Amino acid sequence: MSKYWSDLTASLVPYVPGEQPKGQQYIKLNTNESPYPPSPKVLEAIHVATNADLRLYPDPTCDKLRETIAQYYGLTKDRVFVGNGSDEILAFAFPAFFSADKTILFPDVTYTFYPVYAKLYGLRFNTVPTDEEFRINEELYLVPNGGIILPNPNAPTARFMLVEQLSRILQANRDQVVIVDEAYIDFGGDSVVPFVKEYPNLLVVQTLSKSRSLAGLRVGMAMGHPDLIEGLNRIKNSFNSYTLDRLAMAGAIASIEDQAYFEETNRKVVATRERISEALKPLGFHVIESKANFLFITHPRKDAQQIFNELKNRGILVRYFNKPRIDQFLRVSIGTDEEMDRFIAELAMIIG
Amino acid sequence: MSKYWSDLTASLVPYVPGEQPKGQQYIKLNTNESPYPPSPKVLEAIHVATNADLRLYPDPTCDKLRETIAQYYGLTKDRVFVGNGSDEILAFAFPAFFSADKTILFPDVTYTFYPVYAKLYGLRFNTVPTDEEFRINEELYLVPNGGIILPNPNAPTARFMLVEQLSRILQANRDQVVIVDEAYIDFGGDSVVPFVKEYPNLLVVQTLSKSRSLAGLRVGMAMGHPDLIEGLNRIKNSFNSYTLDRLAMAGAIASIEDQAYFEETNRKVVATRERISEALKPLGFHVIESKANFLFITHPRKDAQQIFNELKNRGILVRYFNKPRIDQFLRVSIGTDEEMDRFIAELAMIIG
Repeated sequence: MSKYWSDLTASLVPYVPGEQPKGQQYIKLNTNESPYPPSPKVLEAIHVATNADLRLYPDPTCDKLRETIAQYYGLTKDRVFVGNGSDEILAFAFPAFFSADKTILFPDVTYTFYPVYAKLYGLRFNTVPTDEEFRINEELYLVPNGGIILPNPNAPTARFMLVEQLSRILQANRDQVVIVDEAYIDFGGDSVVPFVKEYPNLLVVQTLSKSRSLAGLRVGMAMGHPDLIEGLNRIKNSFNSYTLDRLAMAGAIASIEDQAYFEETNRKVVATRERISEALKPLGFHVIESKANFLFITHPRKDAQQIFNELKNRGILVRYFNKPRIDQFLRVSIGTDEEMDRFIAELAMIIG
Repeated sequence: MSKYWSDLTASLVPYVPGEQPKGQQYIKLNTNESPYPPSPKVLEAIHVATNADLRLYPDPTCDKLRETIAQYYGLTKDRVFVGNGSDEILAFAFPAFFSADKTILFPDVTYTFYPVYAKLYGLRFNTVPTDEEFRINEELYLVPNGGIILPNPNAPTARFMLVEQLSRILQANRDQVVIVDEAYIDFGGDSVVPFVKEYPNLLVVQTLSKSRSLAGLRVGMAMGHPDLIEGLNRIKNSFNSYTLDRLAMAGAIASIEDQAYFEETNRKVVATRERISEALKPLGFHVIESKANFLFITHPRKDAQQIFNELKNRGILVRYFNKPRIDQFLRVSIGTDEEMDRFIAELAMIIG
């Protein structure tokens, strides 16, 4: 506490990101990064952009990147917004579309940044129960509310919803904004981006951090009705006009354009995920069905935090959340086949 | 307007950044960028960092960059904060230290983003009059208030305050935060960074965009008491944990470390500024004394907006603000000697 802090600052409970180890080498399965490098074309595009023009401000409206994304999705540029990671876009979307006098909804087990944003902006929220297997029941979102945010697939549970379920929620909530956070959509789920033209209340948020191997570059994107994009721009331009630097834009454009590399790396991640899901079962693990680049697992006889610690001692970092309902689960990012074989081998020894 | 916008979104009057021309080539003297490229060591450091590690999140606490800055200023790392441009740091500082129930102070003619931040966070502000020559009178800041932000040198006026003036304001306002925005301090003004250890209420904000030729990389920094740095971190970590990408951090570290290049380019900018200040006087311009990388000028007989338009037609972009008190002034960034000679030549023809 400091007498110089505002009441807001004093009241916050900030988000805690996953550990980024310094020095010691780990097999890093704790922050859902891709085990594969970015496309060589991305690195080449950044090399080219690393020139004297860095003295100049970047394009504040990010036109070329937005055009590239628009073309990729068959949309017009006025339906696309980009930001410094999808977290920044969410941080703009909460105050852009949600108001303190109405209650927003999100699942009880979900991305832990959502309640942090709500607190930052003084927004009320209700958490909607998922079932004992963390499934989201769309019926529970057909009640009066001031906006909804749904991650699909959900994190850390890996649970995904069908587009039919989301479509029902979108139809029933035409007077408020429904944000679908698709950070993990490229690993086998069906995106609702095709619904953007149909539902003016839909904002789809995606990121280049996971499926495009660019967590270190900080680029996210959002697709929605031009009114929603303008709403995001009004907040952004009251906060920071130049959120994306020249190198991030150059790399992001090259990434979106390299469809073949994107498909190939994601195919590998999905294949490894399926193989490891099966390999965990003989060890006695219960594995939630996943369409993300991570698995959410629990063991009926071995304490999750204990497994987490033993894995760490053996040089493998996974993510453990000491929170109600999920404190017996581990979230395990999908690494390379070699990393995951080592993970399974160590786990077999820990389970005994 | 859209029914999906929050009341806040609908009420905002966002900041409008200076024009970033696409296509047509201009001599660009409108956004206070450096006319010189970044240090070759910066470009080299970015090339080296452009590798497979971009798949990994950056260090969320930016330790290495903060250590580099701390060392540069003879401070400890816990007195340094970094952000995605100094604008982002200011956007965090307003809610971190200012509260809606108290009135903050800043000059009546200043960076137009300050009232935008205040509006975004629902903060009350009083603008403190500058004199007819835009000088800031420190006496007027010795009144009850909920916090102060002072740019030094001021923009767009180029007016600078002496450290003695700022020291008096800091002493008289020990119970609230005084932010000194030093975006332009490296062009001849005296920084208050040495006061950071003495005044726990002082936050100094700087940027790599101007004096380090890195507007396109988006890096800003703030120095202050550890409590103030923690306050900024609480807001940041409720907003976006990873605001600086790996390339921006690598480039920024190399920039801070290359003191010789920094001094050499700034020396050139200052020399050109002094020469052009003198060259404007025979044309009849009144030039406000500047310690920034721009000049604020007015002509007794020729309308400023008309000069702006005629310069633009001749391929030279400067900045014109259609606002009370300054609508007969132009803000002119300092370019290369060659660019400024062309500017003077065209201006001579326009004035006739």
